[in-house]
Amino acid sequence: MAATRTRPGLDEIEAARARLDGVARVTPVYGSETLSRLIGRETKLKAENLQRTGSFKIRGAYNRISRLNAAERAAGVVAASAGNHGQAVAWAAREVGAVARIFMPQDAPMAKVDATRHYGADVELGGTALEACLDSAAAYVAEHGATFIHPFEDPLVIAGQATIGLELAEQVPEAETVLIPVGGGGLASGIALALRAAKPGLRIVGIQAEGTLPGGSGFTIADGIAVKKPGELTMSILDDVLDGMVSVTDEQISEAIVLLLERTKLVVEGAGAVGVAALLAGAVEGQGCVVPVLSGGNIDATLLISVMRHGLAVAGRFLVVRSRVGDRPGELAKLLTLLADERVNVVEVEHQRERSELPVADTGVVLTLLTRDSAHCEEILATMARLGYPTERLS
Amino acid sequence: MAATRTRPGLDEIEAARARLDGVARVTPVYGSETLSRLIGRETKLKAENLQRTGSFKIRGAYNRISRLNAAERAAGVVAASAGNHGQAVAWAAREVGAVARIFMPQDAPMAKVDATRHYGADVELGGTALEACLDSAAAYVAEHGATFIHPFEDPLVIAGQATIGLELAEQVPEAETVLIPVGGGGLASGIALALRAAKPGLRIVGIQAEGTLPGGSGFTIADGIAVKKPGELTMSILDDVLDGMVSVTDEQISEAIVLLLERTKLVVEGAGAVGVAALLAGAVEGQGCVVPVLSGGNIDATLLISVMRHGLAVAGRFLVVRSRVGDRPGELAKLLTLLADERVNVVEVEHQRERSELPVADTGVVLTLLTRDSAHCEEILATMARLGYPTERLS
Repeated sequence: MAATRTRPGLDEIEAARARLDGVARVTPVYGSETLSRLIGRETKLKAENLQRTGSFKIRGAYNRISRLNAAERAAGVVAASAGNHGQAVAWAAREVGAVARIFMPQDAPMAKVDATRHYGADVELGGTALEACLDSAAAYVAEHGATFIHPFEDPLVIAGQATIGLELAEQVPEAETVLIPVGGGGLASGIALALRAAKPGLRIVGIQAEGTLPGGSGFTIADGIAVKKPGELTMSILDDVLDGMVSVTDEQISEAIVLLLERTKLVVEGAGAVGVAALLAGAVEGQGCVVPVLSGGNIDATLLISVMRHGLAVAGRFLVVRSRVGDRPGELAKLLTLLADERVNVVEVEHQRERSELPVADTGVVLTLLTRDSAHCEEILATMARLGYPTERLS
Repeated sequence: MAATRTRPGLDEIEAARARLDGVARVTPVYGSETLSRLIGRETKLKAENLQRTGSFKIRGAYNRISRLNAAERAAGVVAASAGNHGQAVAWAAREVGAVARIFMPQDAPMAKVDATRHYGADVELGGTALEACLDSAAAYVAEHGATFIHPFEDPLVIAGQATIGLELAEQVPEAETVLIPVGGGGLASGIALALRAAKPGLRIVGIQAEGTLPGGSGFTIADGIAVKKPGELTMSILDDVLDGMVSVTDEQISEAIVLLLERTKLVVEGAGAVGVAALLAGAVEGQGCVVPVLSGGNIDATLLISVMRHGLAVAGRFLVVRSRVGDRPGELAKLLTLLADERVNVVEVEHQRERSELPVADTGVVLTLLTRDSAHCEEILATMARLGYPTERLS
């Protein structure tokens, strides 16, 4: 396999672009006035989260799989993945009429399993970690002669991801710095190779999640880049072509996700938000136009809720408070009217009539209130106390 | 003002388009395989939520304000709005160098007030309802000679919104039906006028929120179309050019918001999601390609969390359960290990050590668990009970 271990040239990246024409979307670039103001420099977002299947992965997967000959297509392709790569291989295989077998960890989110199946792949759940899936994939290859599609250590995969770099060079000629998430390194090495060729002089910075670095917690909400280290091929490219590497915390990533959601109306997964996170943290040098690549949008809805709640609670933007009202008609309405008089916006009321520890004549209520900031939260709690309602702040 | 009360012709819509060139974004159209499958027909989304300021409103506001002469610009513009229209007028005024005064209700969300201010407008908070703001705006016009910008009863505003129709006709030539949110009717009358001219034969359906109809609750999460009825001019146009009108419930709108978020990575506000809601509810006739106009994305983050939690809870996709563990080191870890052995994904653990009603040796915990569906929720509750943990389901 030594021959496939060489880095792709500009000709191969151009060829990948031609193959992807009409297959992958040319994803849009958006400026955001608010984001630029908060970051303190012009910021343009490459919205690859709007790519088909919700991530950039189809570019590499399709470029690789479309090069298989008829016999190889008939034997099928195989991948091991808990996420975006599995969906992309399934999708690309269907596009070229090949069968796909995807091995996923047993506790992969049902939404991702379903999506992969709907793209027509055979999904096999097995093992509790990705390693076991890789073993299963290798066994399947040995038995059926199927082609294993690596998520990043493959020049055709890298050339596919690199097409984002060609688009960027045309879409944002004024770019001074580009920020690319780094996990296995396929996306970053591809884009960097393309940009070095198309726009020499541009600063290219890779962004990692702190949790996955040596000495880190081992965990990150940026699961799309939760790879222990880049591959041999991708690492050799990154060493050459990146101007720097920065890491961000999950707290910073969360803040970026909430900001992107509120200000740009884009759902971005943890891995896709690391560039904006690094900018908000002031971790990126330089002055001119900066372009974070939003690599994907496949964030689990439950995780997104947690991230949003956390982000808003930190900013004092909402208040969840438990209280009690008399269990008589009109008592809850009375509390709500008092709050309305104080111009407090109640968005959720939860009754807890069944809580046995309450005085018989009382009913527990959990109120979710919209607030402006932390001072406003304190003000409301003081007002409720003054009006005679017990308060227990839940978040 | 009788002269301004006539409906705009195609020439005026084309002129609006020329004025908006390089000012408003030509928003993209996205297909979604999953959405099309769920709806049962090809569905393409006009992603106007990605418009500058997060909604279509700048098209009409800019078309109107850019026509003011130098003296009128110097006297400034004024609007009364709690939401998208106010932001759009502020933004458009700044673009043409006019001052803007926006009257907003006292309890308008801080995020919208801040955004409007950041676009350079003078924001005046006053009154508890929009009516009071309209009175203040009228008084301001009388005193300062400023120009009042109506959100929909204005041919130039309608012509601005109509440019979406021209874009759609080119972007989705295969469209058979177009679905447009109806509040004041400016968006729907504009798009329908453009499409009737550019693509005769197309079915055009308006979508309203049930809560705002006569006999409804008066409330809807689609606050962008929470107008009691369309205007005189817009209504006369809608009566002529719409093929039909459908209404949807807040429950249906919530489902659409969650689906758009998860499947297309787009944040869409309630008013913007009504078309998809109508499709999911099976309320739209016809067979071919259907295009819902996603009119905006300015949904309050707290409301979005509530909508997502509700949507996921209904689908059995998560479970919040209160339990107790002994207040000794390792007891919580023991419960989490047991759950892990059952392959249950715990996303949040909240300690409630202070709850006075618990036995002294116990600590309350609230666990948020990822689940596959309702059956999976029941299974987990049964497992916890079998292992000796008390369970109280919170959502």
